[in-house]
Amino acid sequence: MTQRPPAVLGMPIDEIDTPALIIDLAMYDRNLDKIMTMINPSGKRFRPHAKMHKSPEIALEQIKRGAIGICCQKLSEAEIMVEGGIKDVLITNQIVTRSKLKRVAELALKAKIGLCVDDAGATMMLNEECAKQNATLSVLVEIDVGGHRCGVSSPAEAVKLARVIKNASHLHFNGLQAYHGSAQHKRTPQERSKIIKNAAAIVRSTVAALKKAGFDCPIVTGGGTGTLIHDLKHLEWNELQCGSYAFMDADYGKNQLDGSHFGTGFDHALFILTTVISTAVPMNATTDAGLKALASDSGNPIIHGYTHLPYRISSDEHGCIALGPDDDIVLGQRLPLIPGHCDPTVNLYDWYVGVRNGVVEKIWPVAARGALS
Amino acid sequence: MTQRPPAVLGMPIDEIDTPALIIDLAMYDRNLDKIMTMINPSGKRFRPHAKMHKSPEIALEQIKRGAIGICCQKLSEAEIMVEGGIKDVLITNQIVTRSKLKRVAELALKAKIGLCVDDAGATMMLNEECAKQNATLSVLVEIDVGGHRCGVSSPAEAVKLARVIKNASHLHFNGLQAYHGSAQHKRTPQERSKIIKNAAAIVRSTVAALKKAGFDCPIVTGGGTGTLIHDLKHLEWNELQCGSYAFMDADYGKNQLDGSHFGTGFDHALFILTTVISTAVPMNATTDAGLKALASDSGNPIIHGYTHLPYRISSDEHGCIALGPDDDIVLGQRLPLIPGHCDPTVNLYDWYVGVRNGVVEKIWPVAARGALS
Repeated sequence: MTQRPPAVLGMPIDEIDTPALIIDLAMYDRNLDKIMTMINPSGKRFRPHAKMHKSPEIALEQIKRGAIGICCQKLSEAEIMVEGGIKDVLITNQIVTRSKLKRVAELALKAKIGLCVDDAGATMMLNEECAKQNATLSVLVEIDVGGHRCGVSSPAEAVKLARVIKNASHLHFNGLQAYHGSAQHKRTPQERSKIIKNAAAIVRSTVAALKKAGFDCPIVTGGGTGTLIHDLKHLEWNELQCGSYAFMDADYGKNQLDGSHFGTGFDHALFILTTVISTAVPMNATTDAGLKALASDSGNPIIHGYTHLPYRISSDEHGCIALGPDDDIVLGQRLPLIPGHCDPTVNLYDWYVGVRNGVVEKIWPVAARGALS
Repeated sequence: MTQRPPAVLGMPIDEIDTPALIIDLAMYDRNLDKIMTMINPSGKRFRPHAKMHKSPEIALEQIKRGAIGICCQKLSEAEIMVEGGIKDVLITNQIVTRSKLKRVAELALKAKIGLCVDDAGATMMLNEECAKQNATLSVLVEIDVGGHRCGVSSPAEAVKLARVIKNASHLHFNGLQAYHGSAQHKRTPQERSKIIKNAAAIVRSTVAALKKAGFDCPIVTGGGTGTLIHDLKHLEWNELQCGSYAFMDADYGKNQLDGSHFGTGFDHALFILTTVISTAVPMNATTDAGLKALASDSGNPIIHGYTHLPYRISSDEHGCIALGPDDDIVLGQRLPLIPGHCDPTVNLYDWYVGVRNGVVEKIWPVAARGALS
């Protein structure tokens, strides 16, 4: 089910088949470098989230710049990353099915694997599967820091679960997963700051309760692109997981920047290249990029270079652009779109086309596209 | 980038890895049979839209039951369908790029291919590419019947374009594409009836103008699952393109049925199987199916068997179910979801798992998944 790449190396950007997933390599490089200059002074480790890009090539570039490993959200993603040469992967999610836990144990024989837990029964099942294969696993207790999605709800429960892990023959309690997803997209820095401050307080009391019970937390991991400035201010986290910073998207673009000199301050490096395929309907241009080319959950994309023109994902395979009398969009014109939400948009494509100075320089597989399980 | 299938033949449904794209084969068979009993008495031809299922296997089953061929929306989809054994494909869309028109001409040497046009320049470019390869193509003029997306806006323009086709050495004017997309999802039969009546009037005046100018329309094609009952009443169309009828989805489920005895009346045959991976947060169950497993454009899915429980696509990889005090959803429980919108949901998966009587009977590739170009 892999489609052929929409370009070849050395091709001018004007010849790339559309719709195509384009990386502006200059902006991307800048983003990858910039986050290291932001995180390094804090002394925190950086473990970028690969659920966003799904590419071992990109993960390796992040590691080359100083990342200690990567995060994945799905086991099948982690398997592909390990196969692609990544040696340290934290699965920032719960896995509760025996057939999958068996695969986790198998993977732990090939690379350094971490997994999050929030349930004692699933933790014991995980240990059974690890014991069968004599694999040892780093386990983090996930705590709910306000997202109310996964994670234990109190310091006492975290301690209880740490004890279950301690008593498990093949598991090693390694600290806490403390991530707040929806905070990333709050529009004002005040809102984001407040949520992260609250999350930090929950981390603090949990770490204290664990300490009292005799547990150290070598890893306290979380944080994201939207809250990075705030995550950096809090000593509670010693590992950060930002993912979207590499590409950014229209939704992150709506976040108001912080007063500090860099704010979120990453560049849009990801574009969907689309072609205008119909101008027959007056005052309208219809393109070849609809719901199957652009995730719609965070709204419509922005037309790069024509930000005043509204792009509407109008159907499965079409976008519509409402034109004013002076707009000069023509049939066959190619338009770069900034997608609403990078993660699920990337997941629609088989290939990245990396462009620099108008020429195709990289063609990378989106190797973990569709890695849902 | 093809992921491994989540099941093997003969496997009990309880062992399928999740998230998975499930076809209830009994319901699917019923839908495939039922539409033929609805369309056959009308004398209209049936050319189901394969943009929905993206599977040559399913297309062949539709043809076996009487469909004359299929529709595709993208050239790359059509290429995969022809490779999969389909001999008659109508691309119900505009293609305006020379590199793609060359591929259209190549494809027309392998199978009976039709294409829609709404621009004279693109039509002439198409002819040039067909001439280069001595391919002959069936061409339909697309007319705008109210969707304001693609298609010429008046009978006079349709006549003008028919003349361009007539004068083209390697093109054959074969009639009209007259499809109204948004009509499919209007909630009341009254709204749908009115829109299709208006569309029929536009078809009628266009056919009359073409007739006057010396052009017959052997094919007038359009129609969809939502408007089928109304499409059947109008003599203007002699070919119907319904696609979603095979699977249905939660959005189509919101359409009020017509007063007639069958209404839309197809069965939900497509499910996303998901697993509850966390119940640590009180009054909540979190699953493994989020934005990358369920298209969100038409709203959240319905939990089959638990229709009173709200499922919220809460993030890229998670769904959240708000629980009441008496709800008995447990960790590890597997739930079948009726997705909001079948087409873009199918496009997220590599494999169909066809189930009958609780056992995996078919594993079909979603061969044209990601065929965007």
